[in-house]
Amino acid sequence: MEKANIESSKHGHVMTGGSGTQSYAKNSSFQRDVADATKLLIQNAVSEQLNPRNFPGLETFYVADLGCSVGPNTFIAVQNIIDAVKLKYQSSNDKIPEFQVLFNDHTQNDFNTLFKSLPLNREYYASGVPGSFHSNLFPRASLHFVHTSYSLQWLSCVPKEVITKNKGRIYHFGAGEEVTKAYARQHATDFANFLQARAHEIVPGGLMVIVLPSRPNGVSHSRVSFNILNGIFSSTFVDLAKKGMIDEEKVDTFNLPIYPTSPQELEATIKQNGCFSIEKIESLPKITTADVPHVVSLGTRAITEGLIKEHFGEEILDVLFEHFTNKLVESLKDVESGLAVNLFLLLKRKDEDNTTV
Amino acid sequence: MEKANIESSKHGHVMTGGSGTQSYAKNSSFQRDVADATKLLIQNAVSEQLNPRNFPGLETFYVADLGCSVGPNTFIAVQNIIDAVKLKYQSSNDKIPEFQVLFNDHTQNDFNTLFKSLPLNREYYASGVPGSFHSNLFPRASLHFVHTSYSLQWLSCVPKEVITKNKGRIYHFGAGEEVTKAYARQHATDFANFLQARAHEIVPGGLMVIVLPSRPNGVSHSRVSFNILNGIFSSTFVDLAKKGMIDEEKVDTFNLPIYPTSPQELEATIKQNGCFSIEKIESLPKITTADVPHVVSLGTRAITEGLIKEHFGEEILDVLFEHFTNKLVESLKDVESGLAVNLFLLLKRKDEDNTTV
Repeated sequence: MEKANIESSKHGHVMTGGSGTQSYAKNSSFQRDVADATKLLIQNAVSEQLNPRNFPGLETFYVADLGCSVGPNTFIAVQNIIDAVKLKYQSSNDKIPEFQVLFNDHTQNDFNTLFKSLPLNREYYASGVPGSFHSNLFPRASLHFVHTSYSLQWLSCVPKEVITKNKGRIYHFGAGEEVTKAYARQHATDFANFLQARAHEIVPGGLMVIVLPSRPNGVSHSRVSFNILNGIFSSTFVDLAKKGMIDEEKVDTFNLPIYPTSPQELEATIKQNGCFSIEKIESLPKITTADVPHVVSLGTRAITEGLIKEHFGEEILDVLFEHFTNKLVESLKDVESGLAVNLFLLLKRKDEDNTTV
Repeated sequence: MEKANIESSKHGHVMTGGSGTQSYAKNSSFQRDVADATKLLIQNAVSEQLNPRNFPGLETFYVADLGCSVGPNTFIAVQNIIDAVKLKYQSSNDKIPEFQVLFNDHTQNDFNTLFKSLPLNREYYASGVPGSFHSNLFPRASLHFVHTSYSLQWLSCVPKEVITKNKGRIYHFGAGEEVTKAYARQHATDFANFLQARAHEIVPGGLMVIVLPSRPNGVSHSRVSFNILNGIFSSTFVDLAKKGMIDEEKVDTFNLPIYPTSPQELEATIKQNGCFSIEKIESLPKITTADVPHVVSLGTRAITEGLIKEHFGEEILDVLFEHFTNKLVESLKDVESGLAVNLFLLLKRKDEDNTTV
């Protein structure tokens, strides 16, 4: 067997745990809007692409959510999947299996909070699986449905070239081609590893739904809302360094390991992997977020403060995000003028000979 | 399917988390001695009673440790099981499967610490399963080997009758027949529920090892070391109440939900359940613990302070265990004069018709 996943605490970019006012649990309304937008797409995916006859005599249907954080979004997503699968089994007169849900996130994720938040009336077995989804996490051919939302934009690490070549910036926005290409290469490598691991784990005929922020084919990175927002966030650090409130060198050596990829880039990696057929690849309807600077700032904090704390120390957090909120009052319109594209991918695991099931 | 397990935080008697000086991780040397004593017995159990031919074409061998706490003992135990299973597959020329280990404990257990402590070089997939083992935790026929050590002496709750009838005491030691019988009935009910859940989950031919503190058949409760120790612990509370340091009524309404059962009682419940054959039931060799009052006191603290904190408040902990240590200086010899029996049970899941595999 392949060696179990080992990860350093370095790249455990996890969401803020607990259930306090700055927690991911309380500041993930955008991710919930994404989940709402994908709800119908997942129902259709199951209805059209899942065939119970591919799993004869199945007793237990295994669902994995990768990058689950601490809830509640993960609970909503898996319930939607289970409801859709039940409906499919009912409509095809097959015996409805039991369900096992596997909640995965980094080892540094707050699984204690996740477990305490599990729905009391759930009708599935629940377990938590710690580790990076860039490696194998589950036994061979053990999963029937994999879901991952707003996780695959995270890189496994900051590319080496970027560490030395992206000074005065914490993101690739405005950094020039060399840096952007390094990010793109890292994302392609990570996604290839991700696909290889899932190919091991998903049974032939099993489905995988991937939702992630994306850059439309042929569109410049600078026109993407997601990048514009992170660009403003990056300049917040630079402002604080200018004011002497944080060390300039610390800003030079810090980089957000995030990259919004394009459908073209994803398709190339999927093709190269060869184990999955692309059943659907489409943009989600535009999500109208509450355009309140404070809310956007809290949302960013919930997903980045772990990394920032590790590099800059806890004491800068309040000042940093207060300044970020103030900047957003001026410039949230720039973010909104950009292209906000979220991609929905539906992949199906081919059979062992890699022919379509 | 049966409804997933729901438990209140009331009865989540979990070990002290983290890795501090008062943590279970640092104060479970006695449990480790037990693990060492069972090592060879488990190797023999697998060698003699596990038949790979019962699981034809098996790709993944599922091992569950129930009541795993935060490590490190659970990691030692599962590695021993895996090594033994590998050896068995090798010696019978069967293809060695992959391994999936399921670490179970109450939802209140510190899974974050458990996950961060997972051996880096492990050669198994690891997942955490929160919930009470008195209910179903895993899908039907999904486990090949279940291990539970020093967990089944815990009751799911304090029996109702005991709450009103065990005043001036926090344990059944010295409480008279009525209270002791209520404890015994609760243990029998809990163990029946435990067996029913495991019968659902373990595949025919699958094995279950249970290790627990026990009372030899026909021997009075007052002669059992485990009870004598808890009796001294109980009188510590009474002393503090007399000194006015804790509320007497609080002592009256607090009871440790622990009961060391006898082989006879266990066998009766196993027979009644009917799904398991008893392959072995024997006493472990006597474990010579370091008879240092301080160490025994810390060991007790690691496994009880959660419950005590909930009922009496955190502030009494240091005083209580200091006084307990002092009492042990005088009376540890009484504990040592008692019978210290730990039982090793090996059960095998019969096939669907409940005939031996």
